[in-house]
Amino acid sequence: MNASDYTIAAIATAAGEGGVSIVRISGPESLKIADTVFACSGDIPSARPSQVIIHGHVTDADGRVIDDVLLLVMRAPRSYTGEDVVEIQGHGGNIVARRILRRVVEAGARLAEPGEFTQRAFLNGRLDLLQAEAVLDLVRAKSDRAAAAALEQLEGSLSARFNKVYDQLLAAAADIEATLDFADDELPQTDVREIVDRLQATRASMAELISSWDEGHVLRDGAIVVISGRPNVGKSTMMNTLLGRDRSIVSPIPGTTRDTIEEGLILDGFPIRMVDTAGLRETDCVIEKEGVRRTVMQMGKADLHLHVVDASQPLSQEDRVQIERFDPKRCIVILNKIDLGMRVAPAEIVGRLAIPCSLTGGDGVPEVRCAMTRMIEAALHASTMPHAVISERHRILLDGALKETDAALEQLRSEREDQVALAATRLRAALESLGMVTGRVYHTELLNSVFSRFCIGK
Amino acid sequence: MNASDYTIAAIATAAGEGGVSIVRISGPESLKIADTVFACSGDIPSARPSQVIIHGHVTDADGRVIDDVLLLVMRAPRSYTGEDVVEIQGHGGNIVARRILRRVVEAGARLAEPGEFTQRAFLNGRLDLLQAEAVLDLVRAKSDRAAAAALEQLEGSLSARFNKVYDQLLAAAADIEATLDFADDELPQTDVREIVDRLQATRASMAELISSWDEGHVLRDGAIVVISGRPNVGKSTMMNTLLGRDRSIVSPIPGTTRDTIEEGLILDGFPIRMVDTAGLRETDCVIEKEGVRRTVMQMGKADLHLHVVDASQPLSQEDRVQIERFDPKRCIVILNKIDLGMRVAPAEIVGRLAIPCSLTGGDGVPEVRCAMTRMIEAALHASTMPHAVISERHRILLDGALKETDAALEQLRSEREDQVALAATRLRAALESLGMVTGRVYHTELLNSVFSRFCIGK
Repeated sequence: MNASDYTIAAIATAAGEGGVSIVRISGPESLKIADTVFACSGDIPSARPSQVIIHGHVTDADGRVIDDVLLLVMRAPRSYTGEDVVEIQGHGGNIVARRILRRVVEAGARLAEPGEFTQRAFLNGRLDLLQAEAVLDLVRAKSDRAAAAALEQLEGSLSARFNKVYDQLLAAAADIEATLDFADDELPQTDVREIVDRLQATRASMAELISSWDEGHVLRDGAIVVISGRPNVGKSTMMNTLLGRDRSIVSPIPGTTRDTIEEGLILDGFPIRMVDTAGLRETDCVIEKEGVRRTVMQMGKADLHLHVVDASQPLSQEDRVQIERFDPKRCIVILNKIDLGMRVAPAEIVGRLAIPCSLTGGDGVPEVRCAMTRMIEAALHASTMPHAVISERHRILLDGALKETDAALEQLRSEREDQVALAATRLRAALESLGMVTGRVYHTELLNSVFSRFCIGK
Repeated sequence: MNASDYTIAAIATAAGEGGVSIVRISGPESLKIADTVFACSGDIPSARPSQVIIHGHVTDADGRVIDDVLLLVMRAPRSYTGEDVVEIQGHGGNIVARRILRRVVEAGARLAEPGEFTQRAFLNGRLDLLQAEAVLDLVRAKSDRAAAAALEQLEGSLSARFNKVYDQLLAAAADIEATLDFADDELPQTDVREIVDRLQATRASMAELISSWDEGHVLRDGAIVVISGRPNVGKSTMMNTLLGRDRSIVSPIPGTTRDTIEEGLILDGFPIRMVDTAGLRETDCVIEKEGVRRTVMQMGKADLHLHVVDASQPLSQEDRVQIERFDPKRCIVILNKIDLGMRVAPAEIVGRLAIPCSLTGGDGVPEVRCAMTRMIEAALHASTMPHAVISERHRILLDGALKETDAALEQLRSEREDQVALAATRLRAALESLGMVTGRVYHTELLNSVFSRFCIGK
């Protein structure tokens, strides 16, 4: 018996207090189960057409009412999973949906595993693996931009890019294999050269896809903004000002090191992880070496640096050196305390954006926020229209495919027959890697690793 | 413009990660809004029949896809609110539903107030006030029994009982007013006596309804089980054993007093609040007076007492006195430590249920659990079939109606004409109170106080 011969059921809505909860049933027995657990006037569910809503009651085995519900009938293949699907919309809260689910299981359904509905949609060709993963990204999205990017992935734009690369690679591999049929004759070199050119273009598309990971990581995990500067220049005020003015604080993330404090916020649609690095400048102090080491490590991971200086004092040599180390495209120098006088000229900060501020009074803060958004956008090549981006899993598979392709290119360029045969094998391996991104190629462990991250009921 | 001239919208599912979220729209513009925000193949939503499911996309004002959704059309009066209702079922999570809701508001809907959908259902005669409250009880239910009781209330069984009492009272009031028309003649005494008899029966029904509050409070708030006994007899072991064996622990409720620890669990469908009273026997100690006072107060509120004694020692005078104070129907004496010898005979505990136990070994624990369920059931007159029970609001209104009825009865029994006229006024006041239970009589503040307790989206 195949997994999808079973009818599965789960609560599809989030746990907790809400007006409505949904129990979803999918599989060959869905309508039979609906007939058993559901009472209504008129035809029983299995006698109804697809895409209808029926009002009635879920009853227990003795006919006692469990809930007053709406029942939705969606017949195969016009359903999320591509199977017969029944949804029971009952009252919200923690108990009602559980009672309905228990009754549905009693009537023959099996409890669904995490992601099993989406896995069935994948197995039935309703979604490819990239789209299935987009469902999870959408549910987990922390910002509008992340949701929009996930949605584009769900709609298939990323799949199309991968499929194009896959098809090009497949054609190249087939063409190489065809040249091998020239057996004892000399290889037709022109063909191989033409294939090399095509593969070179395909390689570039793969590299471009890999580069989208940077943006993807920001959308999924948040851009890391590190606030640095000497003690008492206003680093914490900078952090509090950015957090306090923005009502979209997501959640405080406990600092992973003793010496840095991390907080999340959403800035113009971008999730941000803001890190306050206390103690960066105390490098002389031997005792705090470990703390400083961690601070430096955090700075190394930063997508953007906010370096705060006390502009009422002349610029220190220390600050000058530090500022020069930052990537000009990922650094904003905050000239703070200008209310106490201005002894640093913006022109002194060569090649870096410097914004005069009085953080305690709030002067200059809108400019800082605006510059942050602009830099994060620019650094990520984010257009106003967000687009689908690859995940860590895709990056690893793409990296593998890229390495195989590079090896194949080298072998092909050698123009030696034995090497060309090996190149074909390399391209097959690259295809296997790429195929696992969209799910053209899959095995049980791959599906398990993708779908086990889902919640039950999706 | 009336409140219900507006079209309202809210997220109807619980917040958090889940497979599916629902945005619900209700009011005259629902379908027009659906036409604006929703794109699909085939007819637009307003051109579709009622009770259908349409697959399509919610798009923003520029036509960009916000989510891939199912849209449900339920036309007035065949909907929850009795108005035109549209439900948009999108992906779960925190962002997607909010984006859809924002779009729906942009297209003309107003954000719904807490309970506003149910309030509209009430105002449109789809539910009475008791049923509306049952919706909230159902969502908030902490156990199967509480859910079943709320469901019965939603199905109208409690409404029927209240309506019967109301109708009887109304008939009595009308009949009394009719006798007043006999103006200067003598009152027809037989009629008044007959009315008194009927009112007496109605009064009994009201008293019976009031008595259901006891059970209602247990179903809603949990039965209070207080564990008492001298130090080191095994009180905490008793508590831990009951908690540890039962996987249905709901949530630890922080102790409200320094000296008692309170934990929640579900025992055979009953929510239980178990209170461990440390220090009950140290009444000699002046310093702990406050703690003991609180413990005694807790014991006074108990629905059931578990009194633990060390049965390997002879029964102390202290225990003997304490046990005699307990209501035999609400007390179980735990004869603990029988593995160390048995020096208390069950017969020594006169008139109270005594169960020999060895709590550390687990001996006797199933018997204790079984006895607890039985006693809670018996004390609450709970049948195997749970039934709808009144809430604190209903009890207050019923108490008021009962007092007025009692006053009216006294006046009627006096058989003096001026008193009979006053009795009619009393009965009108009783009717007003009763009417506010089901919502036959209501005013804005009443509706506000009932519906403001709801969540948004219900």
